[in-house]
Amino acid sequence: MDVKLSEIGEFGLIERLQKMTRCGRGVVAGIGDDCAVLRSKRVGWYDLFTIDTLVERVHFRPEDPPSKIGRKAMAVNISDIAAMGGLPDHAVVSLAAPRDYEVEKARSIYRGMRKIARKYAVDIVGGDTVHSPKNLVITVAMTGSVEKNRVALRSGARPGDRIFVTGSLGGSLYGKHLSFTPRVNEARFLVSKSTITSMIDLSDGLASDLQRILSESSVGAEVRSDDIPLSAVAGKRSRESGKTSLEMALTDGEDFELLFTVPAEEAESLAAKWKRKFRLRLTCIGEITGARSLGIVSRDGEKRTLHRTGYDHFG
Amino acid sequence: MDVKLSEIGEFGLIERLQKMTRCGRGVVAGIGDDCAVLRSKRVGWYDLFTIDTLVERVHFRPEDPPSKIGRKAMAVNISDIAAMGGLPDHAVVSLAAPRDYEVEKARSIYRGMRKIARKYAVDIVGGDTVHSPKNLVITVAMTGSVEKNRVALRSGARPGDRIFVTGSLGGSLYGKHLSFTPRVNEARFLVSKSTITSMIDLSDGLASDLQRILSESSVGAEVRSDDIPLSAVAGKRSRESGKTSLEMALTDGEDFELLFTVPAEEAESLAAKWKRKFRLRLTCIGEITGARSLGIVSRDGEKRTLHRTGYDHFG
Repeated sequence: MDVKLSEIGEFGLIERLQKMTRCGRGVVAGIGDDCAVLRSKRVGWYDLFTIDTLVERVHFRPEDPPSKIGRKAMAVNISDIAAMGGLPDHAVVSLAAPRDYEVEKARSIYRGMRKIARKYAVDIVGGDTVHSPKNLVITVAMTGSVEKNRVALRSGARPGDRIFVTGSLGGSLYGKHLSFTPRVNEARFLVSKSTITSMIDLSDGLASDLQRILSESSVGAEVRSDDIPLSAVAGKRSRESGKTSLEMALTDGEDFELLFTVPAEEAESLAAKWKRKFRLRLTCIGEITGARSLGIVSRDGEKRTLHRTGYDHFG
Repeated sequence: MDVKLSEIGEFGLIERLQKMTRCGRGVVAGIGDDCAVLRSKRVGWYDLFTIDTLVERVHFRPEDPPSKIGRKAMAVNISDIAAMGGLPDHAVVSLAAPRDYEVEKARSIYRGMRKIARKYAVDIVGGDTVHSPKNLVITVAMTGSVEKNRVALRSGARPGDRIFVTGSLGGSLYGKHLSFTPRVNEARFLVSKSTITSMIDLSDGLASDLQRILSESSVGAEVRSDDIPLSAVAGKRSRESGKTSLEMALTDGEDFELLFTVPAEEAESLAAKWKRKFRLRLTCIGEITGARSLGIVSRDGEKRTLHRTGYDHFG
């Protein structure tokens, strides 16, 4: 009785909601992936549909530049579309702001949105503005599309698949969370050049988001801790954060890099093709196993099992 | 400098944003209507896309039943689709809730959403749950579709057109705002049986929302005050609200009835067809004029000009 959201956590809530939501025949994948995947009127394609909310003092600080807050609200949705291997299309925006919020700041939020939207060919087509007595709350919903034979769900990872991550991880809070690049081009390259058996964008931390893939795919994983690409800022800020840089890479949220799996036999050739195309780092950090756990192995062979430790919105 | 949202109001903000948002070739109507209207892959149809946010203590009270709050969050979006003459299709949901919010209440919110979604054949296909330190904030985004030759924009009203409203108005705050019927069936009937030159759902009050049609259509209107259908609750609660029941009908928000215009020559036959089909009241309250003002005429011939007086989110 009277169980609070903080007691079951975001995972728990989503699991409960997943069970409650029955989807129609037009729905290929619903709650539980980065986007909903829907049958499309366009032959050979799926439609994508996603929504993300940013809350002041949770996802940004009141003193952050409004244009960067707007940019982030748009970028997190673009990143969700990227995580499916798709292309973004249209966005609608809802701004809930206090009465005394400055008009010029509201305009800056929209300018930040518009700038990154243009860069990714997203049309901002509508919106809603409402009063919010306390906090600034910004929601963006976005549609997109992806070829049926290229869609990357969270649920397709198989034992033996190699696990890859783009970029480097940890310490996003020190700046990257407001200026990250949604990996649309990279994801489009991946789904066109290789069999991407599962993919997710890292919003809640590697440990947490890899667990999501494992859970949706009913598999486990073994990750080599020494191979996890640590960001420079994670190294620099480790002391003040009170975590090792490895812990930061595993548990800090909002890196918005891609985490994905490919069949072992395609791993090497994909990595070689990637290197010819992008300067961005691509790292194989481990492989999918048949066990239902997430193991972390260090170079000296020490092995530990990782439990859910990433960012939990209600934890 | 430092102009606050409350000084320019919601109208002012939307006007500014409208100017800022340039839309691509795929966009038939963007910000400034109930929904965005988009070219579709489906021949002969447009896609619709809308978003609405409900904020605790603004759109509902903390003590309101959670299932009714959820119902409302879904219903306001369905009503936006109805206002275009369209059919709703898919919804995504974002729930921002404090950590100590009860799980059972969150589930009730979703149950309320699901129940009305099913009734209108809407699939809830995805969502986001985030932490909100202060207030409960619920956002729903919805897609829909409408035949190209039936879409009802806000911008098509012409001098001479008759102005109609469904149901009765005023005092929604006393209960209807949590239990209103989105007028999808009624709107579908209207756009199939008659030329609907403009349509809007009454979310901010008759005076305010009629102004939106007038502004988008570059016309004026003359409304007969004695013909405005007053709700029973507006009559009963007039004293405690401190407004006359006519003022309540003109300025109370959230009736979610349809306000629309039809060419004069179709008005009588449409009203007759309506009466054979629905028990819900349909009332002709006035007509569109070439003047750029909204005049209210009483039975004894007294005439006054109405300025923007409806609910303004930042007013």
